Amino acid sequence: MSDLIWKKTGQASMPDEAVMTFLAGEDVLLDRELLPFDLEASAAHANGLAGAGILEPGEAIRLAECLARYSTEIQQGERVLGAEFEDGHSAIEAWLTEDLGELGKKIHTGRSRNDQVAVALRLYMRDRLSRLAAACLDIATVLLERAEREQALPMPGYTHLQRAMPSSAGMWLAGHAECFIDNAELARLTRQWADACPLGTASGFGVNLGLPRQQVSDALGFARMVVNPQCAQNSRGKIEVQAVGALAAATLDLRRLAWDLSMFTMPEFGFVVLPERFCTGSSIMPNKRNPDTVELMRAVHGRVQGAQAELQSVLSLPSGYHRDLQATKPPLLGAFGAALPALGLLSGLLAEFKWDEPAMRAALSPDVFATDRATELAAAGMPFRDAYRQVALELAAAPPGDADKSIEERVSPGAPGRLELGLLKSRVSALQSAESSN
Amino acid sequence: MSDLIWKKTGQASMPDEAVMTFLAGEDVLLDRELLPFDLEASAAHANGLAGAGILEPGEAIRLAECLARYSTEIQQGERVLGAEFEDGHSAIEAWLTEDLGELGKKIHTGRSRNDQVAVALRLYMRDRLSRLAAACLDIATVLLERAEREQALPMPGYTHLQRAMPSSAGMWLAGHAECFIDNAELARLTRQWADACPLGTASGFGVNLGLPRQQVSDALGFARMVVNPQCAQNSRGKIEVQAVGALAAATLDLRRLAWDLSMFTMPEFGFVVLPERFCTGSSIMPNKRNPDTVELMRAVHGRVQGAQAELQSVLSLPSGYHRDLQATKPPLLGAFGAALPALGLLSGLLAEFKWDEPAMRAALSPDVFATDRATELAAAGMPFRDAYRQVALELAAAPPGDADKSIEERVSPGAPGRLELGLLKSRVSALQSAESSN
Amino acid sequence: MSDLIWKKTGQASMPDEAVMTFLAGEDVLLDRELLPFDLEASAAHANGLAGAGILEPGEAIRLAECLARYSTEIQQGERVLGAEFEDGHSAIEAWLTEDLGELGKKIHTGRSRNDQVAVALRLYMRDRLSRLAAACLDIATVLLERAEREQALPMPGYTHLQRAMPSSAGMWLAGHAECFIDNAELARLTRQWADACPLGTASGFGVNLGLPRQQVSDALGFARMVVNPQCAQNSRGKIEVQAVGALAAATLDLRRLAWDLSMFTMPEFGFVVLPERFCTGSSIMPNKRNPDTVELMRAVHGRVQGAQAELQSVLSLPSGYHRDLQATKPPLLGAFGAALPALGLLSGLLAEFKWDEPAMRAALSPDVFATDRATELAAAGMPFRDAYRQVALELAAAPPGDADKSIEERVSPGAPGRLELGLLKSRVSALQSAESSN
Amino acid sequence: MSDLIWKKTGQASMPDEAVMTFLAGEDVLLDRELLPFDLEASAAHANGLAGAGILEPGEAIRLAECLARYSTEIQQGERVLGAEFEDGHSAIEAWLTEDLGELGKKIHTGRSRNDQVAVALRLYMRDRLSRLAAACLDIATVLLERAEREQALPMPGYTHLQRAMPSSAGMWLAGHAECFIDNAELARLTRQWADACPLGTASGFGVNLGLPRQQVSDALGFARMVVNPQCAQNSRGKIEVQAVGALAAATLDLRRLAWDLSMFTMPEFGFVVLPERFCTGSSIMPNKRNPDTVELMRAVHGRVQGAQAELQSVLSLPSGYHRDLQATKPPLLGAFGAALPALGLLSGLLAEFKWDEPAMRAALSPDVFATDRATELAAAGMPFRDAYRQVALELAAAPPGDADKSIEERVSPGAPGRLELGLLKSRVSALQSAESSN
Repeated sequence: MSDLIWKKTGQASMPDEAVMTFLAGEDVLLDRELLPFDLEASAAHANGLAGAGILEPGEAIRLAECLARYSTEIQQGERVLGAEFEDGHSAIEAWLTEDLGELGKKIHTGRSRNDQVAVALRLYMRDRLSRLAAACLDIATVLLERAEREQALPMPGYTHLQRAMPSSAGMWLAGHAECFIDNAELARLTRQWADACPLGTASGFGVNLGLPRQQVSDALGFARMVVNPQCAQNSRGKIEVQAVGALAAATLDLRRLAWDLSMFTMPEFGFVVLPERFCTGSSIMPNKRNPDTVELMRAVHGRVQGAQAELQSVLSLPSGYHRDLQATKPPLLGAFGAALPALGLLSGLLAEFKWDEPAMRAALSPDVFATDRATELAAAGMPFRDAYRQVALELAAAPPGDADKSIEERVSPGAPGRLELGLLKSRVSALQSAESSN
Repeated sequence: MSDLIWKKTGQASMPDEAVMTFLAGEDVLLDRELLPFDLEASAAHANGLAGAGILEPGEAIRLAECLARYSTEIQQGERVLGAEFEDGHSAIEAWLTEDLGELGKKIHTGRSRNDQVAVALRLYMRDRLSRLAAACLDIATVLLERAEREQALPMPGYTHLQRAMPSSAGMWLAGHAECFIDNAELARLTRQWADACPLGTASGFGVNLGLPRQQVSDALGFARMVVNPQCAQNSRGKIEVQAVGALAAATLDLRRLAWDLSMFTMPEFGFVVLPERFCTGSSIMPNKRNPDTVELMRAVHGRVQGAQAELQSVLSLPSGYHRDLQATKPPLLGAFGAALPALGLLSGLLAEFKWDEPAMRAALSPDVFATDRATELAAAGMPFRDAYRQVALELAAAPPGDADKSIEERVSPGAPGRLELGLLKSRVSALQSAESSN
Repeated sequence: MSDLIWKKTGQASMPDEAVMTFLAGEDVLLDRELLPFDLEASAAHANGLAGAGILEPGEAIRLAECLARYSTEIQQGERVLGAEFEDGHSAIEAWLTEDLGELGKKIHTGRSRNDQVAVALRLYMRDRLSRLAAACLDIATVLLERAEREQALPMPGYTHLQRAMPSSAGMWLAGHAECFIDNAELARLTRQWADACPLGTASGFGVNLGLPRQQVSDALGFARMVVNPQCAQNSRGKIEVQAVGALAAATLDLRRLAWDLSMFTMPEFGFVVLPERFCTGSSIMPNKRNPDTVELMRAVHGRVQGAQAELQSVLSLPSGYHRDLQATKPPLLGAFGAALPALGLLSGLLAEFKWDEPAMRAALSPDVFATDRATELAAAGMPFRDAYRQVALELAAAPPGDADKSIEERVSPGAPGRLELGLLKSRVSALQSAESSN
Repeated sequence: MSDLIWKKTGQASMPDEAVMTFLAGEDVLLDRELLPFDLEASAAHANGLAGAGILEPGEAIRLAECLARYSTEIQQGERVLGAEFEDGHSAIEAWLTEDLGELGKKIHTGRSRNDQVAVALRLYMRDRLSRLAAACLDIATVLLERAEREQALPMPGYTHLQRAMPSSAGMWLAGHAECFIDNAELARLTRQWADACPLGTASGFGVNLGLPRQQVSDALGFARMVVNPQCAQNSRGKIEVQAVGALAAATLDLRRLAWDLSMFTMPEFGFVVLPERFCTGSSIMPNKRNPDTVELMRAVHGRVQGAQAELQSVLSLPSGYHRDLQATKPPLLGAFGAALPALGLLSGLLAEFKWDEPAMRAALSPDVFATDRATELAAAGMPFRDAYRQVALELAAAPPGDADKSIEERVSPGAPGRLELGLLKSRVSALQSAESSN
């Protein structure tokens, strides 16, 4: 174990190894993911110290150069955050002190690990919420492209898992697309909401230095400061809950979409054929070809929901920092770590799967045209409730319906005959340009 | 039981009473809360039918007049949604048919209970999220007023529930204020995100009528349509999860604030005295005076967290409507029904409680000034880590500190000596004017 | 509002109506469900006071008679716990004082509402866990009866929602039966675990009276006392979490079973026909016949999972009673209130649904016999992995299989050819006789 | 990547690396923890195959020897389950095939990875629930020893975080002890409930071999077989939920105990002094000595609650195996992996902390004796409610109380004057001997 930064001169008794192992938990491993953000914020802090007259300008530059080098070395695998450190924050001070001597021992002036981790987590969430928005827009884009091409392909629409009315591949695709556009927008709004800089609030009570906090916040590209130091600490976990909440919107839709694909690939439906590369086999049954990718996509939301529960469970605390807050890191990093790859894989799967048109048409049994007929009668003047009852009486003798005509004439906005893809595409474009200007 | 609207002519066997009781659950009771919104949307739908040429303009007016009357009667307690109806949606058609005959039987043309409940829930959430934003701003306003008055009142700041540094009543108050400003903003963003009209998407596949959906959406004051009918159905529950998520941000902070008050009112602290009207006694212990209001405020988040879990648990479904979705109503209405009153009571409690200045000053033991001293040494040029160790050595002999001076000199932005209340007040104002223009 | 029992003589200021409404919440309504248990325990407490020499034997008898009368009156609807009381506990003292004067004011000697509610909740949970066990055994019994009759009826077995191997109605039925036997056993074990009496621990610190706690515990039929008063309070919520956990095992299986029925009733399967009385229709689609009962059964677990989350969220507290604990009542009562009726309805539905044998046989495509063939080859000496690969090669040309023979020859214990129903039935019998001896 | 065991001869297209990485997730890493159990069960399966006449007795012996050797090598770090395998199950067949040729390819006869993982998980849970019971008994033992020594040490008891009545260190210690005895019992009951062998049910439909399942179950020390193969699969996740539920009971109490210690170590209380080895310092505040160990113990329940939510979220599925079930492994292993070390550390901490008697006595202000006095009056014949009101009136002038006398006279069973430690100790002994006979 490297020297603990809070070790006092002459202090004898300290946590023994068993306790340190318990306290560290997986924390050092998790800090590897946060370290790039911690290094970035440390450089901004060094500049802030120069702005406050604590460091010479040249000192800040030397610190920033070292920190940038660590970032590069970490990215290239030449420097690893090892278990000899209590956490990533301690490692940074230790490395700087090793490389720069007295100057390294100055980096922690006016800051605490409390604001250091808070700013690293905000930067991490900002980054991951951007990736989430981008992944959702990719998915929507693939879906809208297919919706345009396949809007004339009819299939039954289901409610209560019973055949309900004629629908179309186009409507199914555009429906999921609109949901993922909503998810991209939520990711964006959540990122904006969380886009505030806690750095410079120290342990939660500020410091007796005129730190140029606004300037540091600007340098890190934040939209605003977290003004109050207590708010900076009390927001820990709360921001994470909302970031994971934005993720949950996407994984809830991923789950629904995976459910659809899971059913459409059943032999009883046969509507969808998945590419071989997304399927696996069984260890005992030679006949099996299983849509495992789809199933694990469906399961991802469990991790996200568990993370939300875990975060909220930990957060029943009075104001200020408590070590309990360390336990908010695993669910946050775990949820994004599990969900972003699944969303990343989804756009490929959606681009590649094949519809089986004959199977889809064969499933359009005569009963599914009943509502069209009742609506026609209502349009012709019969009170709808009477039309409904009359069509119900004639149902047993209903002839086969014309699915192409049915979806063509379904012209209420958004319906198969009038998908309004333009409205959806313009939302995608607006979000894409907003994102790229971040 | 009133006649079921889906009963077919000559249909003999139907759900028996035990099954109907199970299916209805608490649903009719919950629909009482949704009914005003359902009536409002039904009138808009009638106008839409006129726009589509299905109703004469005069017919739409007669329907709208009836619906408005029902709303008034319900508000005045003259009309009650009774258990003889399957749900609120069926009641509306039944009442209209009773009052207007054939015309009443036309109201359900081109719509399903699926889009009817979806639009009522969106209107409900829009309303409740506005109330949430307003409640958060009220709380922030009270806190900021006190923060201004009480910024010079010192108290210890705690981390790990151990005394950490000198802080102030002003900083505690402003810290909670900033958190509730964030919560108001989140409520507002969530409402904007959800502000889309699903009406006119029928059972999830649109209809063969050129419904003027955009016009109906505008008439109901929505920012946009939910374009795709499948998206309208698949969004059910997902929107609720986010609405409850926005509520959770506020109740998480309510919980933290209640924790603080719960501790500050302990005799061991004695920092805070609650008004009598928020306290109760014990049935056995004559000496007790308990802060029950604070404790039940702290417990409210449990209901909200439970609601989130319940909603997400129900939503593991393929696309389209399923009766399972009925089970999303109790957690949504239950969470807002429990949390809004608690938040409403909080601003009063915050305005009325009293600080006990001598108790707060007495708790500022010499050790809490150590960080100020280390930072001073660092500002004078000693590397911070060395300053830290030197101050630690001197700690046992530290003289009493000057709390007033300490908080006055804590001038990093947001710290007790420089609360930056102006920045927070301007966020409140901006949100208030945005809200009032809704 | 009735006089508060903790009101002191001359006390002026008290909680105002808004606060009292907030504090009471739905609590008085919930207490209606607990009141019978509270009355039963109050009579036992009166006897305990006589045992400790605090009451004359005749006084205890008069109190017990009154309490028994209240129980009867409540059951017959002649006495209602109204909102004028703070809670059910206060009502009991108020009623007794009204009816018996000074004697009524003695009932609360040596007890607190803290142990009063704890014992009522234990009695409630004991009762509901017994009902849960009975409901699970009813379900298992129906399933085993059908399994015996329908063990020769073949159907495909599915993994990954893909056809896997030949299975049978009997195996499906017996499989669910065994799960519900496990659930009955868990309900029983949980009840035993929780079967301890907290009465006589007062507010959590005991009293300076030699209460005959063991005798009171025996009189209420508990297996043992909760010995320590602090444990009596700290167990609140924890016991509830486990009671709801036992319920969750049953509703998890209810959800799985409902999923199966939901799929088997799809037209694409057509394996199962539900009785009309469990189905409903659509308000717009004349053709629909929806398995709503099955869907709402599937959704019930959401309530149970939400209740678990809510309970655990509230319980982050130091030792002793806190008003927060009041918030553990709604999730407990809500979860059992929602789930027991669903389980009660399930056995009827399981007894009445019909299989469609031709549809089930038609789904047994040639591929599902592959594993039988590979196992035959392995039994004849070919290494299984080689057999697997050889069968895979021959799959495209596989002839139709003989489902009857396949399930007959599947003789590993528990498999379709050897269901071992006797083992399951004897577990049912053992649990039934254990339950009836409670 | 090692050859996939379900790869068919001549099969060209397969999952690409990106998909395989997604599918494997952390699964191979998790399987390292399950591998010892998988190896143990594989040897039992080999013996079962010999019993069914599929293998020669000598073949089973050679397989078992290899499997035992792998176990040893893994324990000694000489064999590692690497990422080149799809999962631990595949690795076992691959290793055996490499070492034993054709014989290795026979190991998977009559089994599927579906029952292979199910049995490994049951063995894992059996083991972890035993460790949980043992940890809870260790904690209870330490607490009871201290309770005996420190029963005369008075301290205030708290309700609503307000001083309520005199209590004692002994009562606090014994109260937590009884809770952990309950937790040990729950762990034991849960293990018994789950103690059933799914091996030999193959992919969920049995096989056409007369496998001696009962004999295999006995060899692995299970109390009974899971009879039905579908039940074996449908129980996956449900058993895990209950195992984690038993863990939750212990971590809920750990959280409460940690809350107590967290408060008792505040300077405002000063009741408890923690050993140095459980404390840490601050990076910025030289004065801090923080009870981090206690705080992270308090946070552990969050992981457990999150795991429960995650498990239940994943389990919304029809009958049979689905790849989604792989997602039940991380929450199960994560919850036990986080909680058992925390519980293991707790007994040491409880043995070592020191009480500060003067601080505890000083906190016994005159008001806390009020209930004793009211009860005395009631014992002397005054109706309790009148006694309560009279004591309330005299409260302001109450003289200092005698804490030693108060706790001595608090003689209701379990109260400070009559702790009934014998009852608790005999429960510990009974559970210890039951456990040691497993």
